[in-house]
Amino acid sequence: MSEAAQTLEGWYALHDFRKLDWTAWRAAEEQTRAKALDELQGFLQQWAAVVQDKQGSTAVYSIIGQKADFVFMHLRETLEDLNAIETAFNKTLFAQFTVPAYSYVSVVELSNYMGGSGDPMENPEVVARLKPALPKANHICFYPMNKRRSGSDNWYMLSMEERRGMMRSHGMIGRKYAGKVKQIITGSVGFDNWEWGVTLFADDALQFKKLVYEMRFDEVSAKYGDFGDFYVGNLLDSQKFAALLQL
Amino acid sequence: MSEAAQTLEGWYALHDFRKLDWTAWRAAEEQTRAKALDELQGFLQQWAAVVQDKQGSTAVYSIIGQKADFVFMHLRETLEDLNAIETAFNKTLFAQFTVPAYSYVSVVELSNYMGGSGDPMENPEVVARLKPALPKANHICFYPMNKRRSGSDNWYMLSMEERRGMMRSHGMIGRKYAGKVKQIITGSVGFDNWEWGVTLFADDALQFKKLVYEMRFDEVSAKYGDFGDFYVGNLLDSQKFAALLQL
Amino acid sequence: MSEAAQTLEGWYALHDFRKLDWTAWRAAEEQTRAKALDELQGFLQQWAAVVQDKQGSTAVYSIIGQKADFVFMHLRETLEDLNAIETAFNKTLFAQFTVPAYSYVSVVELSNYMGGSGDPMENPEVVARLKPALPKANHICFYPMNKRRSGSDNWYMLSMEERRGMMRSHGMIGRKYAGKVKQIITGSVGFDNWEWGVTLFADDALQFKKLVYEMRFDEVSAKYGDFGDFYVGNLLDSQKFAALLQL
Amino acid sequence: MSEAAQTLEGWYALHDFRKLDWTAWRAAEEQTRAKALDELQGFLQQWAAVVQDKQGSTAVYSIIGQKADFVFMHLRETLEDLNAIETAFNKTLFAQFTVPAYSYVSVVELSNYMGGSGDPMENPEVVARLKPALPKANHICFYPMNKRRSGSDNWYMLSMEERRGMMRSHGMIGRKYAGKVKQIITGSVGFDNWEWGVTLFADDALQFKKLVYEMRFDEVSAKYGDFGDFYVGNLLDSQKFAALLQL
Amino acid sequence: MSEAAQTLEGWYALHDFRKLDWTAWRAAEEQTRAKALDELQGFLQQWAAVVQDKQGSTAVYSIIGQKADFVFMHLRETLEDLNAIETAFNKTLFAQFTVPAYSYVSVVELSNYMGGSGDPMENPEVVARLKPALPKANHICFYPMNKRRSGSDNWYMLSMEERRGMMRSHGMIGRKYAGKVKQIITGSVGFDNWEWGVTLFADDALQFKKLVYEMRFDEVSAKYGDFGDFYVGNLLDSQKFAALLQL
Repeated sequence: MSEAAQTLEGWYALHDFRKLDWTAWRAAEEQTRAKALDELQGFLQQWAAVVQDKQGSTAVYSIIGQKADFVFMHLRETLEDLNAIETAFNKTLFAQFTVPAYSYVSVVELSNYMGGSGDPMENPEVVARLKPALPKANHICFYPMNKRRSGSDNWYMLSMEERRGMMRSHGMIGRKYAGKVKQIITGSVGFDNWEWGVTLFADDALQFKKLVYEMRFDEVSAKYGDFGDFYVGNLLDSQKFAALLQL
Repeated sequence: MSEAAQTLEGWYALHDFRKLDWTAWRAAEEQTRAKALDELQGFLQQWAAVVQDKQGSTAVYSIIGQKADFVFMHLRETLEDLNAIETAFNKTLFAQFTVPAYSYVSVVELSNYMGGSGDPMENPEVVARLKPALPKANHICFYPMNKRRSGSDNWYMLSMEERRGMMRSHGMIGRKYAGKVKQIITGSVGFDNWEWGVTLFADDALQFKKLVYEMRFDEVSAKYGDFGDFYVGNLLDSQKFAALLQL
Repeated sequence: MSEAAQTLEGWYALHDFRKLDWTAWRAAEEQTRAKALDELQGFLQQWAAVVQDKQGSTAVYSIIGQKADFVFMHLRETLEDLNAIETAFNKTLFAQFTVPAYSYVSVVELSNYMGGSGDPMENPEVVARLKPALPKANHICFYPMNKRRSGSDNWYMLSMEERRGMMRSHGMIGRKYAGKVKQIITGSVGFDNWEWGVTLFADDALQFKKLVYEMRFDEVSAKYGDFGDFYVGNLLDSQKFAALLQL
Repeated sequence: MSEAAQTLEGWYALHDFRKLDWTAWRAAEEQTRAKALDELQGFLQQWAAVVQDKQGSTAVYSIIGQKADFVFMHLRETLEDLNAIETAFNKTLFAQFTVPAYSYVSVVELSNYMGGSGDPMENPEVVARLKPALPKANHICFYPMNKRRSGSDNWYMLSMEERRGMMRSHGMIGRKYAGKVKQIITGSVGFDNWEWGVTLFADDALQFKKLVYEMRFDEVSAKYGDFGDFYVGNLLDSQKFAALLQL
Repeated sequence: MSEAAQTLEGWYALHDFRKLDWTAWRAAEEQTRAKALDELQGFLQQWAAVVQDKQGSTAVYSIIGQKADFVFMHLRETLEDLNAIETAFNKTLFAQFTVPAYSYVSVVELSNYMGGSGDPMENPEVVARLKPALPKANHICFYPMNKRRSGSDNWYMLSMEERRGMMRSHGMIGRKYAGKVKQIITGSVGFDNWEWGVTLFADDALQFKKLVYEMRFDEVSAKYGDFGDFYVGNLLDSQKFAALLQL
């Protein structure tokens, strides 16, 4: 048996991708649409307040292409909190104009592959990474991933030393993109269908491509990375969301 | 031909994951919703009574994310019993506001890999594990799995001795989580699309991640485990279910 | 080129899995439901008559879980007969309350791996197996399967001798379940997406699990078996079907 | 780089599998159904005329099982012709009672593996095979397929000599079925999701099973064949189609 | 770690495949259809104007088979531009008669495998390839693809030298089709589910088949290419689109 990596966990995450039902939206009375938009704006304000109280963080982006129209990425203290957000949203009039497109349940995670010494939870930098305020970058990129367990390419059969060496090299690519791409890694073993979710934020969307492509040549991705669907989006605020919905 | 593991079976299991049709629920008259809720509460009481009579057990949890809104996990004596529950539910008004999301048919199973001597069915502890009262833990985690049969990673071509050794090591990880995570293994060979269902219960959902992740480095999972979709949820009782449905 | 196994074929088979549209069923007038039920009962009688005339056989079972509500398994002389049954059913009022869930087209098959000498079609036992009256066992289990052609695990590249040896061992497991499980093998190469369909009948559903699990350790399944979805069900007769549909 | 096989191409092919929406069909007025049936009969006549003018050929079969109710297999000179047929059909009242089930775009192809000398397009037999009048056999069988490119089983890395040898042996099996099964091979590289479509015609449907099963033991299929979904059907003419639709 | 190829990026691309909802279209009033058609024609003009301003390019083709009825391929400066086009389209009456079928998000890309010296962005030919005016060829072919990372066939573990050698040979096949097939390669790492999109344009659709088939025997495709769904279509202009929609 190989030694498991130690992990630290912070806020739970729910990525909630939704499509707009444009036919229903167009068919609705203007008054109905106004009420629905009010509800949405109420949520956006409420979620912004949570950020200020450091009880969580929510990012809101439109999605390019047919996979979804927008995503809410919520970070909160508990799974009960996330479930409460979903349920509250589902009860609104606005939600009736949306169709679920994809969701992902995970928890913000730091692994000890690069880990230093001392109690990490005493380290404010670590805590800030486990309970992060999501940035207002122009673009978001999300994808889930697994470490491969296939024939001789089996990540989980490698020694801790081998894995640490590869993760270090991997981390160095990430560091080259510091200031250009912010990465949030969330663990989802036991919570959802892949082992990790990766959420990237950048002002220049091309940096997503550069980063992910460069990493693909790194052994840890080249031999051991399996990837799910990719979603890319543009930042929404309450004005942009209103404009998106304005007929 | 490799020697098959001997197994003991107890209650049959039906995991019944459902979504709520929020649009229809919102569109319904308050009176209609009240009637539907009454039916649901009637089932919850009826299923609770079955537990008291030791004729079975039912767990009820909400599900986080878009895969489902809630799950009923029923344990009963026969497949006829499970089918009767499904049919009774499908005939209600409440069921018309739900949409099937996923289901799983299996039977509670103990394997002889750790087995002692003597007639196990005389052992009250064994019987209690085969016909368990499902716990009221804060959280549930469910996933189906196979043992891999792929090239040189073929569980079913290993000797009983090899398999027993790996299962023992696997069981020791499980034991480290005693008191934190309760595991119910159900066999589904011949009943559903995977070979086993795994249902975990814990008060702290992070323990699901810790347990499943630690096991993934264990050879039996690392080389021989293939996993289906993961579902994670929060405990519901009749009050919480009513609150979930309250508009 | 490896020598192909010789096969004998009997009746064509159509497994027709359907869901009931409970919402539409509940919404229908009682009179409408009565008419639909009459049509269904008419078919059940008609199909029973076919059995008596030895022109075919039909089994009717409810299905546990969300995959389907019931299955009709029809054996008939020709593909035209099967198509006529489908079409007649689709034209009824009752069919409008059902939703297709899965179907499988195949033909009852015996292979020569265990074959004796002489013209098998002169052998009444062989003919009875090729044109069987389906049993009224308490339970049905259905799954499709392939023989694997993957890297070094390629069934179709083995010699006839190797395949015969493995099939003999496989058959011996089947024989251990004689009187407990009745197996009907149907070939579907050229007819449907898998190479074979396996339909099992048993009074005790646990015997499905015991049989399929024991076989999985047999080399022919362990190395060469790929399996599709599994369906398990309970026997229906006209009374039980009426009760299932009674609101 | 391995030498590519040379191919000759003839008519473009569109296999158009459709389901009937029986609920809508039953709900329609008799007059509406009569009009829809007239449109269908008009198409059947028009397509028959195209055959007589040697501008193409169309086969019409019902499909057994739930995958589809019927298929139109059209051969025409250009992709524009095929698109025009689709569009004309979609504009009819009859089409509104159908639901698309599957389609396949390809082109009739002959490969040079068995090729003789001289300009093949001067050879009337070759031209007849590239622009064939589809037979009125009792049964049709369709499936798409790829040549495998997987690890050491990589068709496209073999030498022309190796490929030719295997294709010759393959062709000899096909020739054993001459007079029993007519094969039309269509290439779909660059046009649809698999590399080839195979359409078989036979008066005795069992010959599909015999042929495909025997070929599966041939190295070119055993090691290098990957297969998609199989469809099997019964010949329709205008009378049989009317009967199929008659309520 | 293997050296990543350097890439140049130009316009972002959105391939937007849609089906027409023929039932709704037929059911609509003639006036409604006329208004919807006007909106479509307005977009076609607007997109044509963008081409003239060299702010982007849009290709419009019908699609053969059931996968889609038509595709808009948009090239624009930013992801915001692409999202704005989608949203504007979704708000129209015409869009309510369409159903999303498939989409793909990527960016026009040139790799340095064949790269010369000097600053490529100073090279007008390079710029013209990164921001191309899409041709009005008779036919389009689109498919997404990955470079394989599977066991010993792992593109990303090869040295730059090996990859460059294979890409050179690959490019030479492409050059043989110069004047017959125009290729636009778009990178989608970090943007969509595959690593690249390939869009081909040709006046003779057979050239798609010839090109893709010939390339399949090239090592870079034979061993390292994994392909998604293929779409093939015919050129639409405003007249042809109107004719397609004319009942």
